[in-house]
Amino acid sequence: MRKEIKKIAILTGGGDCPGLNAVIRAVTRTAILQYGYEVYGYKFGYKGLYNNDLIPLTLETVSGILHKGGTILYSSNKDNLFDYLVEENGKMVKKDVSDVAVENLKKEGIDALIVIGGDGTLTSARDFARKGVNIIGVPKTIDNDLAATDVTFGFNTAIGVATEALDRLHTTAESHHRIMLLEVMGRDAGWIALESGIAGSADVILIPEIPYDINKIIEKVKEREAEGKLFSIIVVAEGAKPKDGSATVYKIVEDSPDPIRYGGVANKLAVELEKLVKNHEIRSTVLGHIQRGGNASTYDRILSTRYGVKAVELINEGKFGNMVCLKGSDISYVSLEEVIGHNKYVNPNGEFVKIAKKIGISFGD
Amino acid sequence: MRKEIKKIAILTGGGDCPGLNAVIRAVTRTAILQYGYEVYGYKFGYKGLYNNDLIPLTLETVSGILHKGGTILYSSNKDNLFDYLVEENGKMVKKDVSDVAVENLKKEGIDALIVIGGDGTLTSARDFARKGVNIIGVPKTIDNDLAATDVTFGFNTAIGVATEALDRLHTTAESHHRIMLLEVMGRDAGWIALESGIAGSADVILIPEIPYDINKIIEKVKEREAEGKLFSIIVVAEGAKPKDGSATVYKIVEDSPDPIRYGGVANKLAVELEKLVKNHEIRSTVLGHIQRGGNASTYDRILSTRYGVKAVELINEGKFGNMVCLKGSDISYVSLEEVIGHNKYVNPNGEFVKIAKKIGISFGD
Amino acid sequence: MRKEIKKIAILTGGGDCPGLNAVIRAVTRTAILQYGYEVYGYKFGYKGLYNNDLIPLTLETVSGILHKGGTILYSSNKDNLFDYLVEENGKMVKKDVSDVAVENLKKEGIDALIVIGGDGTLTSARDFARKGVNIIGVPKTIDNDLAATDVTFGFNTAIGVATEALDRLHTTAESHHRIMLLEVMGRDAGWIALESGIAGSADVILIPEIPYDINKIIEKVKEREAEGKLFSIIVVAEGAKPKDGSATVYKIVEDSPDPIRYGGVANKLAVELEKLVKNHEIRSTVLGHIQRGGNASTYDRILSTRYGVKAVELINEGKFGNMVCLKGSDISYVSLEEVIGHNKYVNPNGEFVKIAKKIGISFGD
Amino acid sequence: MRKEIKKIAILTGGGDCPGLNAVIRAVTRTAILQYGYEVYGYKFGYKGLYNNDLIPLTLETVSGILHKGGTILYSSNKDNLFDYLVEENGKMVKKDVSDVAVENLKKEGIDALIVIGGDGTLTSARDFARKGVNIIGVPKTIDNDLAATDVTFGFNTAIGVATEALDRLHTTAESHHRIMLLEVMGRDAGWIALESGIAGSADVILIPEIPYDINKIIEKVKEREAEGKLFSIIVVAEGAKPKDGSATVYKIVEDSPDPIRYGGVANKLAVELEKLVKNHEIRSTVLGHIQRGGNASTYDRILSTRYGVKAVELINEGKFGNMVCLKGSDISYVSLEEVIGHNKYVNPNGEFVKIAKKIGISFGD
Repeated sequence: MRKEIKKIAILTGGGDCPGLNAVIRAVTRTAILQYGYEVYGYKFGYKGLYNNDLIPLTLETVSGILHKGGTILYSSNKDNLFDYLVEENGKMVKKDVSDVAVENLKKEGIDALIVIGGDGTLTSARDFARKGVNIIGVPKTIDNDLAATDVTFGFNTAIGVATEALDRLHTTAESHHRIMLLEVMGRDAGWIALESGIAGSADVILIPEIPYDINKIIEKVKEREAEGKLFSIIVVAEGAKPKDGSATVYKIVEDSPDPIRYGGVANKLAVELEKLVKNHEIRSTVLGHIQRGGNASTYDRILSTRYGVKAVELINEGKFGNMVCLKGSDISYVSLEEVIGHNKYVNPNGEFVKIAKKIGISFGD
Repeated sequence: MRKEIKKIAILTGGGDCPGLNAVIRAVTRTAILQYGYEVYGYKFGYKGLYNNDLIPLTLETVSGILHKGGTILYSSNKDNLFDYLVEENGKMVKKDVSDVAVENLKKEGIDALIVIGGDGTLTSARDFARKGVNIIGVPKTIDNDLAATDVTFGFNTAIGVATEALDRLHTTAESHHRIMLLEVMGRDAGWIALESGIAGSADVILIPEIPYDINKIIEKVKEREAEGKLFSIIVVAEGAKPKDGSATVYKIVEDSPDPIRYGGVANKLAVELEKLVKNHEIRSTVLGHIQRGGNASTYDRILSTRYGVKAVELINEGKFGNMVCLKGSDISYVSLEEVIGHNKYVNPNGEFVKIAKKIGISFGD
Repeated sequence: MRKEIKKIAILTGGGDCPGLNAVIRAVTRTAILQYGYEVYGYKFGYKGLYNNDLIPLTLETVSGILHKGGTILYSSNKDNLFDYLVEENGKMVKKDVSDVAVENLKKEGIDALIVIGGDGTLTSARDFARKGVNIIGVPKTIDNDLAATDVTFGFNTAIGVATEALDRLHTTAESHHRIMLLEVMGRDAGWIALESGIAGSADVILIPEIPYDINKIIEKVKEREAEGKLFSIIVVAEGAKPKDGSATVYKIVEDSPDPIRYGGVANKLAVELEKLVKNHEIRSTVLGHIQRGGNASTYDRILSTRYGVKAVELINEGKFGNMVCLKGSDISYVSLEEVIGHNKYVNPNGEFVKIAKKIGISFGD
Repeated sequence: MRKEIKKIAILTGGGDCPGLNAVIRAVTRTAILQYGYEVYGYKFGYKGLYNNDLIPLTLETVSGILHKGGTILYSSNKDNLFDYLVEENGKMVKKDVSDVAVENLKKEGIDALIVIGGDGTLTSARDFARKGVNIIGVPKTIDNDLAATDVTFGFNTAIGVATEALDRLHTTAESHHRIMLLEVMGRDAGWIALESGIAGSADVILIPEIPYDINKIIEKVKEREAEGKLFSIIVVAEGAKPKDGSATVYKIVEDSPDPIRYGGVANKLAVELEKLVKNHEIRSTVLGHIQRGGNASTYDRILSTRYGVKAVELINEGKFGNMVCLKGSDISYVSLEEVIGHNKYVNPNGEFVKIAKKIGISFGD
């Protein structure tokens, strides 16, 4: 017979995304109002689970957070408890400390755990499920690159910010006859560049899935000149790479410990284009973290709320070891075992690339 | 053997929606760049077809319109050519003038026609298809109430505007301990109220599909007081109606030729609540046409572009008499014969109402 | 010798305005960080002063509120302590209870009081100053109609919301060849209508200061038709009135205890125009409370911050009985004695009306 | 006796700014509707004047442009006709070709010329005035660094964009306990950083006028830690420089022809901070051209309109050789002779820096 659920907990892992707070709110309200559970939040993702750093979540705690970016539970990027950096005999070593987490859950009487996160967070969720923890995953990736769900929250907000930036760049590009580059997120999957490029009326979209030839970009610029359009807008995913296989990550700042964080693909491409295209000024902007913060879009608020409610329903039905997901228009769920390692890349022959090409957008291929 | 397509035309019917221009742009660009068609636009919907009032659409014409609300082809609300008001012998009479339209298409050599519109426009499209016109429909309804497609463009923009209004009302409601009502569009289907209510953190949502009991609304307000929340936000669809069957349309302004246009459901309810709830001030706002104008959201720009490209593809494949639609994540199409008369109402027992109730939203039922 | 200041308090009175929280934050931070004062907030304006309902304000309390609309101290509309409704011998009577307030300040050891509010709140501030209270006023009126300061915060946010609404209405008006009316705030002063009308490209602006003749409005509409512009945008201040002196406040909803709150000037005018203008559809929107809520604009955040810092500086310098104000580009102050009863109306012959007329805007006069 | 004005022309020079189109619109409408002038526009600034590349501006041409960023007349950065690059005997040489411009004006019968631009454009305006051209200047600088006017249009829009970016960065910074840097425009004057920093709740503001000491920045971060705030937001003007006099412009991309265009001050500072601050992740964003494009804010639309009307009024009154300006709340004008070479820098002891410091913002000094 299934153990009755009385207490549940929630944690957020990985990079932040608009919508995290909406999930936390929906989980808390549903759990309390509908099922009478007590709800707790671990701070800083799995790190909080390890340190038993938890706070009660009440209707009051989650009041007024629906639209807010970030996460009231904080997050952490290095919190894999199955391979965790701990001090031992004065040295830092990596160890599997997941048992400490399981122990902590027991000690606090947490009957079920909801984790919101991307690939890394969900891999740990699967591993905790294997260890018998009653766990439910909620997918979160700003890049929308998880195969097991059609859409992840945060993505719609991100493409909204990128599209607004493109709208703004258009007026300057047109007034000055410039080529404007905008670098957006997407190291491995080009969804943000692709969708914001379509929505923001880009002329060229460069994504990791379709290596580009700089000459094809110049061709497109010249084609536009021939039509009397003396400006061009290029959206570049941070993982875009040239066909000839040259490095995608440029050393932008000497001594930079993590060059990609400081932009560069668009800046570097701007410099290269400047050498090849004589009759245009070229400018480049790296959108950076502006894409992942701030108020969640209407779409993301609704999707996050649906995910949050569904996660608690799965707990109530005892369907552990699953991740909530969106399939078409419907909220559903899928086994965590099937989620891990399946990413969703842009298909160079898929509908989105095809429609983009049909309306005249070049991918530099 | 299928006649080769050389010239196509497009028209927009019914109320305007953010995204119309994005469809026009995608159709024009795809038709010209991909298939080498000539493209024309009829002005003022079917009225322009009757008057043979058409303009060429070129890459230049559709430049810079992707994000813009409204329609560069203008629209008309009274343009059913199968029952059209014409002058005859000095009198205005209603007649079927559809043959004039068919004749005009022939005369101009238009090989295929794309019509963008809602129920009325699409019914005419079906009837023209029956008369042998090569016609493709593109669905447009700000209320998202067409059964044949999962989503219509304009809806996402509309709920965005409504949600932003709710965000704004929240701060005032909270500061002054008020009950704030916001009336949004939705005469027969409550989707805008429902989704913006979830996204905008409403406490009560009133929709046509779930008749309300004013005492249940007051109960919810009192329940919130008991929790220490001294304000409440109520979203009201313009077609919301009380359970006891009293009229939904109030005569707001004496002599008003069309009272519903001048708001009223929310205003009237505000007055009634004011009599019954003593310790709160009550304020009401009617959002009106602000919901359907202005720049299209990112989501709507992309959906409209996909619809526009698909419409031309259907022409190219000779698949006439169909309407493009969204099914899950995929663009598809459906026979116009199956579209008409099937509306999509909010299911009082469906997922959206259920999740809303689970997070504590009252529907006054 | 001046008594040393140790404790100060702040309260917010009257209708809310974006920027109130920014003032509260600036006052609190400056008082604590710069001068080492303790800071308290009275809840619900003067009502809280009467009830001695106060909370400590710390760096933590005011964290994250800079941009937020509303007021974390709540507000009240009926809180004139010099004419206050109290129960006495089982009956409600109006009394001067200001001595209770003075007593409460003494009891709590509050050395100086900052009040943020409009005409009513500032009149009480002056009266408390006369009673010897160390008081500083901060002006707040969404209508920008206080003569003693060039600009009040909240106004820039309000005209931003109204202008965005006008932008949205434009696309629909143009697509459908409609006359669109937008009713904005302004019972006595037409600044919001005037400035949003200029910024939002209105064709007609109707304000209380310039009574209108409906025939002049129709003339303007016809003049536009002659230029090929088949739509018109009309901004109406809620206090706009016809020249012939007919009532400005229409009974919109039968039994309404306060008709003006439920819109009506624009709705009524729409009905009248509909009878007189045959070839245009007419639509009307009442913007209502959306104008005064939500995030403060950049301009208002900065102005509020300057006001808040200045208010504490005046306390530090012992310059009581004054109100902070903006004169040109400079923050300054003026005696509360000079503030009261001096409103700033739109000058029908002033620069703003003149430039509006020069670019072709009609005032219906 | 003054020659009657019949034809006027307008041109836009230098980098684009939201509000340029609003000036063009106000000039055109006022000139046509109020004074009956014919209006022309030179394309690409003075370059168009040299090439006699002009178009008629009508009510139709300027319809719908009030809110739009950019300039419908295009602009050019290298168009000083007093030192202009021309081909002579097969070689490119710099020459004074201003007489060609004067000749062109005569040939076309242009009685007066309005030029909208910054320092460079206005210097040429003064020089043309000295040559007897009937010229009126309209100030334009996104940095708001012109001493002769209190405010230039575009600035309010720019700080709005920067403030919104700061709002977005806040949520991520807080969730991840990060130090986030935002680089904004301002090579010589730090107004954008200063005002957006105040409005966007920055903890540190670095501007060219106040050289910074990196240790003071770290002090501020530690001070915040001590208060329990584990994140910090730093706004950096692109011209910010360290106290020790090290170079302000870093070579961000090898071979870059113009390194400052590709960001760098914030990126470089991020790398340096990363070495010194161990317990925070650090991220940096360069806002770039997003600040100067897109729709103009309400404030900028109104200011631009006032400038445009005033410019035509000055022509009508024969007051040539002047520039329109804002003094306090009033539109006025000043001789072009007095405008040139007087920039307005942030006063390290002025009101804005003082209020920023009083609410706890550090300038790294």
